[in-house]
Amino acid sequence: MKINIVNPNTSASMTQTIADGARRKAALGTTLRVVNPDAGPPSIEGWYDDAMAVPGLLSELKRGEAEGAQAHVIACFGDPGLHAARECVQGPVLGIAEAAMHVASLIAPGFTIVTTLGRVRDMTWHLVDRYGMRGFCRNVRAIDVAVLALEEPGSAAREKVLQSCRAALEEDHAEAIVLGCAGMVDFCEALEQELGVPVIDGVTAAVKLAEALLGLGVRTSKRSGFAFPLPKTYSGAMAPYSPQKL
Amino acid sequence: MKINIVNPNTSASMTQTIADGARRKAALGTTLRVVNPDAGPPSIEGWYDDAMAVPGLLSELKRGEAEGAQAHVIACFGDPGLHAARECVQGPVLGIAEAAMHVASLIAPGFTIVTTLGRVRDMTWHLVDRYGMRGFCRNVRAIDVAVLALEEPGSAAREKVLQSCRAALEEDHAEAIVLGCAGMVDFCEALEQELGVPVIDGVTAAVKLAEALLGLGVRTSKRSGFAFPLPKTYSGAMAPYSPQKL
Amino acid sequence: MKINIVNPNTSASMTQTIADGARRKAALGTTLRVVNPDAGPPSIEGWYDDAMAVPGLLSELKRGEAEGAQAHVIACFGDPGLHAARECVQGPVLGIAEAAMHVASLIAPGFTIVTTLGRVRDMTWHLVDRYGMRGFCRNVRAIDVAVLALEEPGSAAREKVLQSCRAALEEDHAEAIVLGCAGMVDFCEALEQELGVPVIDGVTAAVKLAEALLGLGVRTSKRSGFAFPLPKTYSGAMAPYSPQKL
Amino acid sequence: MKINIVNPNTSASMTQTIADGARRKAALGTTLRVVNPDAGPPSIEGWYDDAMAVPGLLSELKRGEAEGAQAHVIACFGDPGLHAARECVQGPVLGIAEAAMHVASLIAPGFTIVTTLGRVRDMTWHLVDRYGMRGFCRNVRAIDVAVLALEEPGSAAREKVLQSCRAALEEDHAEAIVLGCAGMVDFCEALEQELGVPVIDGVTAAVKLAEALLGLGVRTSKRSGFAFPLPKTYSGAMAPYSPQKL
Amino acid sequence: MKINIVNPNTSASMTQTIADGARRKAALGTTLRVVNPDAGPPSIEGWYDDAMAVPGLLSELKRGEAEGAQAHVIACFGDPGLHAARECVQGPVLGIAEAAMHVASLIAPGFTIVTTLGRVRDMTWHLVDRYGMRGFCRNVRAIDVAVLALEEPGSAAREKVLQSCRAALEEDHAEAIVLGCAGMVDFCEALEQELGVPVIDGVTAAVKLAEALLGLGVRTSKRSGFAFPLPKTYSGAMAPYSPQKL
Amino acid sequence: MKINIVNPNTSASMTQTIADGARRKAALGTTLRVVNPDAGPPSIEGWYDDAMAVPGLLSELKRGEAEGAQAHVIACFGDPGLHAARECVQGPVLGIAEAAMHVASLIAPGFTIVTTLGRVRDMTWHLVDRYGMRGFCRNVRAIDVAVLALEEPGSAAREKVLQSCRAALEEDHAEAIVLGCAGMVDFCEALEQELGVPVIDGVTAAVKLAEALLGLGVRTSKRSGFAFPLPKTYSGAMAPYSPQKL
Repeated sequence: MKINIVNPNTSASMTQTIADGARRKAALGTTLRVVNPDAGPPSIEGWYDDAMAVPGLLSELKRGEAEGAQAHVIACFGDPGLHAARECVQGPVLGIAEAAMHVASLIAPGFTIVTTLGRVRDMTWHLVDRYGMRGFCRNVRAIDVAVLALEEPGSAAREKVLQSCRAALEEDHAEAIVLGCAGMVDFCEALEQELGVPVIDGVTAAVKLAEALLGLGVRTSKRSGFAFPLPKTYSGAMAPYSPQKL
Repeated sequence: MKINIVNPNTSASMTQTIADGARRKAALGTTLRVVNPDAGPPSIEGWYDDAMAVPGLLSELKRGEAEGAQAHVIACFGDPGLHAARECVQGPVLGIAEAAMHVASLIAPGFTIVTTLGRVRDMTWHLVDRYGMRGFCRNVRAIDVAVLALEEPGSAAREKVLQSCRAALEEDHAEAIVLGCAGMVDFCEALEQELGVPVIDGVTAAVKLAEALLGLGVRTSKRSGFAFPLPKTYSGAMAPYSPQKL
Repeated sequence: MKINIVNPNTSASMTQTIADGARRKAALGTTLRVVNPDAGPPSIEGWYDDAMAVPGLLSELKRGEAEGAQAHVIACFGDPGLHAARECVQGPVLGIAEAAMHVASLIAPGFTIVTTLGRVRDMTWHLVDRYGMRGFCRNVRAIDVAVLALEEPGSAAREKVLQSCRAALEEDHAEAIVLGCAGMVDFCEALEQELGVPVIDGVTAAVKLAEALLGLGVRTSKRSGFAFPLPKTYSGAMAPYSPQKL
Repeated sequence: MKINIVNPNTSASMTQTIADGARRKAALGTTLRVVNPDAGPPSIEGWYDDAMAVPGLLSELKRGEAEGAQAHVIACFGDPGLHAARECVQGPVLGIAEAAMHVASLIAPGFTIVTTLGRVRDMTWHLVDRYGMRGFCRNVRAIDVAVLALEEPGSAAREKVLQSCRAALEEDHAEAIVLGCAGMVDFCEALEQELGVPVIDGVTAAVKLAEALLGLGVRTSKRSGFAFPLPKTYSGAMAPYSPQKL
Repeated sequence: MKINIVNPNTSASMTQTIADGARRKAALGTTLRVVNPDAGPPSIEGWYDDAMAVPGLLSELKRGEAEGAQAHVIACFGDPGLHAARECVQGPVLGIAEAAMHVASLIAPGFTIVTTLGRVRDMTWHLVDRYGMRGFCRNVRAIDVAVLALEEPGSAAREKVLQSCRAALEEDHAEAIVLGCAGMVDFCEALEQELGVPVIDGVTAAVKLAEALLGLGVRTSKRSGFAFPLPKTYSGAMAPYSPQKL
Repeated sequence: MKINIVNPNTSASMTQTIADGARRKAALGTTLRVVNPDAGPPSIEGWYDDAMAVPGLLSELKRGEAEGAQAHVIACFGDPGLHAARECVQGPVLGIAEAAMHVASLIAPGFTIVTTLGRVRDMTWHLVDRYGMRGFCRNVRAIDVAVLALEEPGSAAREKVLQSCRAALEEDHAEAIVLGCAGMVDFCEALEQELGVPVIDGVTAAVKLAEALLGLGVRTSKRSGFAFPLPKTYSGAMAPYSPQKL
């Protein structure tokens, strides 16, 4: 099976981090296509970046499906364009925030999300509500480190994440941690060992859930709300949607 | 005061309908800028159209602010890009679904939304939840007529809306109607007379709420969740965000 | 247009404060009738005061409508008698807690309410739930200062409100403040300048929303839940309801 | 023990019906004081009647406590003034809607409320939410019969209630019925026999819960939200609150 | 009337404590059968203990009904097997957590539950949600003392409960306390005197509610969800359900 | 990897059906242990059966872990003992209702559950709420056919399920179907072809999610709420919990 993982920002180094993380967990028979769009924001740190990443992301989702991918992962914790993506392609689509929260809710009574900047706290709570996870999510904590700074050598980011996780266990009564950024995929194992509780990274969670959905044989329902976009002619430079190309 | 109304689809005739409706209700001292983007979908009928309309919409919001508009209206009932818009501009921004539901909740115990296609039903319920209106919204009804068909002379659309409203009053115990499409602004008064209950159109509701917010002197909070996007260089053909231009 | 603002307590000095605040924000064409009943509590600090203020309040609402007012504001943050008021008069009726929360939810991801006495905390949360604002209201904070003490010269009330607002921004992640008492209308601008976030006062918010509803041409739905009270003969000293007088 | 039951409307015949119903279920050692105020609405059929009944109701609650009653029942299904009542007296206070819903939730997975006029449907849903009963209440059905018509000989009211209950069992999957008006107390036993499910009347439910609370020795918490009203001088004809009289 | 109180753990000393507490509050005409099963866990401190206690508990409920009990109390704060119990017997069944929360919600705006071990915190929140008490329950606090240690002479448990209650009043704005373990029934009165707010013990609350339901004449609805178990032959050592024996 | 699937009822034919269904979807490297307890109910049709199945189920879960199983599936749509199971074993545990609802929420805007007997409707809604699926579950429909009758040759069960699914699509606006009984696993593919929407069976969904969790390397959090049961000596014939045996 072939899974299409799209990092919706344009930072190739983060795409590489995502690919490395995903490959460590993918099943033997799984082929991964891990890409990022050419156009769009270099990192996603708010509603605007999130919205502007969507056209490039959707193009890559459609391109991936044209190249044979059967399932799709949106590899940014804001899950940009998730519902639009479900309209555009036939294979199942998973957001990494969605995947991480679902997994966490299956193995712990409650979890805390540790994310990057405080400005995405509210956006993250929106996702919690959209997925029905209000009963499981104990808190959303921000370490106030920019997304791309996670990758800087010698960054204090890891240490800040660790401190935030410890506070989550003590103060929020969290019993698992959800990492709130694709760029934290590398931190997962070390944190789990230090903390002694499950630490869930969304990229790997989404890959495994995508494999599960494909193995199960389910695809996105096309009955109404996620039916293919209606054929219509888009104006301007923006590439119109062409379902017939698929 | 100057209000910037952006129809996020590219259909000039619908922009005209919106402008006419808005002008009938705007205050004497209010100047309206009513536009649509050059690029994007000709109508918005689902998550994909909604997402693809956002870049063009945000450009027009920023352009409007550069031209002196102090408040903004997103004139499509899906409220595309509402949160991103609040980041991009300083003046308050209103979605027409948001405005219509707020107004309806102030003058009736409960309302039903009558919209166009069944495929947007779920999207509409998402908005209901986002605005805290679950306790007020009795139902979302779809008449299964495409957005642009609303404008066709001799269309059965008006009659179908009327039937749907009557069912809402009888079966849903609705006590007000919210029209679920900017293109229905013309239907508002006739429906109200026939039904004997308030019929709320979002375009005009948003214009009046925008005037209210401006009169009150409040602008979007820039403290965190709606702070201006962080300055960063976007890749590719997509115009990067440039807050300094404002 | 003429708006009827009823301070439901009997303190003329507070009525004056309310009138001054309202006039600063009212539109040029707006006439304000700002009154308080003769009979009732001098301040509203709990459920009992709230309930006992309602008969006098409703009389003044009806009197205001008889004198030509087209919309009504209940100028106490407990929104006493709001639903009864919607039955009694034809024009739209706004509570100031309702108006403030609606406005705050349009310009910030979340707000904290800063109120007077701790004993009204629970009452305030009831209003939050009634208006669907649970997703927006981060906290209700009380400064433990009596309502009428807000007006005392040299009172520490302003300073306590400021401290409470600062705690709201830091600890609650609030991004706007809602002032939880009509008597705080004077504090609004200074607080906004000191805090750098929107500070919403309910009296002025309600006046602007009332103007918006009138401009839009909507009135309270009279279909069922807010239909005029049924004609019946009340016993005793209590003036019966007389819809025919309107 | 002595329980004070106040019918908040002024119809002596309904007070008699309530008293008869209550006495059939009261424990041997229970003395009942069953009264109605002199002033107020003859029946409560909406928010206005509800609000206007409160001052007279509260007077009778205080009078009852002065006469030695240790617990109180508000015998109208709108539970008018319930929170104010908890402030005014020391003994526990039960609304009959509250009592009936609590009892029903203890003996069935879900219930439907059958009430009189459609105009109180929304008011009833407010109570459902206030008491946390949204998960148990399947529907609120109205028979469109006025409150006082329930008592008319030869009235079709009983038959309409029965039909409504049958629809509740079949269509709502209700497994118990809550009677939505104090005036239906007489219908309870016959309905239960015909329907084969528990039929809960609020008057008797409240009497038994009041006995239970007294037997348990609990009284209303006076710590903050239901503390006695602050001593203050009310203006006008309205009798000021005088806690010292108690 | 005869009430069957089953302590679902096998600790006879705790059964004695429960019996003593219950008898102090039972009405004169009430006979109590207070027992524990022979088989099962000696204390219930988690989901496993809770589940394993159910078969023994259900046997004792059925035995109690066979011996003439008309109502039943499950005397463990996890309310193990409550729904199964409602299927198995005809008389009403109350869990002590359920009873305590219902009572607390009738006499205070909000309460905090003080329980034993932190590991049951999540289980307790499940009960809060099941009974619709999310709007009333301010917090669940654990003192980290094992259930059976509550009874040890010289134990610090009482003092820890008191400290936890004080924190609840100050930090949670709780206005009543619910004791989260049957073994705390003895602490109730002393705590109430020290704290000055109602302190609710579930055992006594359930006895009084059971008396109320019996006095009212209601029994569990047998229409569908709590109908008697279908007759079927259970395999193995486990005693099959035999409704005909009743 | 080895997955332990426990059918909590004692019907070997249903265990066989479950095993066949599970094997069709399991990955190549997955070994399945599919068993049922010796003792317990032959089918689970209500709260009592559900509770009485738990001890036998937990024994088989522990036995499976002792035999090397790394993950566990509870193959009954009531998800009996799910939380207790998470305490007893180390590997992740999935209920089939839980698994089916999670999968359905990932590929459709909303689903309807089609189950066997009306008496389990309320139990099923409890599961919907426990998993946060209230926003996704459109309805729970019962075909009023007993569990074991699903397997009878010539049974009308399949046809009734099909009719119920059709009603779900038309009347509930469901866009996927969740089959509400392990015994329906055989119906899945044919239904999907006839209906044209995803039809989710819980047994296969749980197997694939279990594989995903194992591939991801996560296990149940043992920090607090699902920590191993405390060591204690159970009384009577009931086998005490012995974590040391694992």
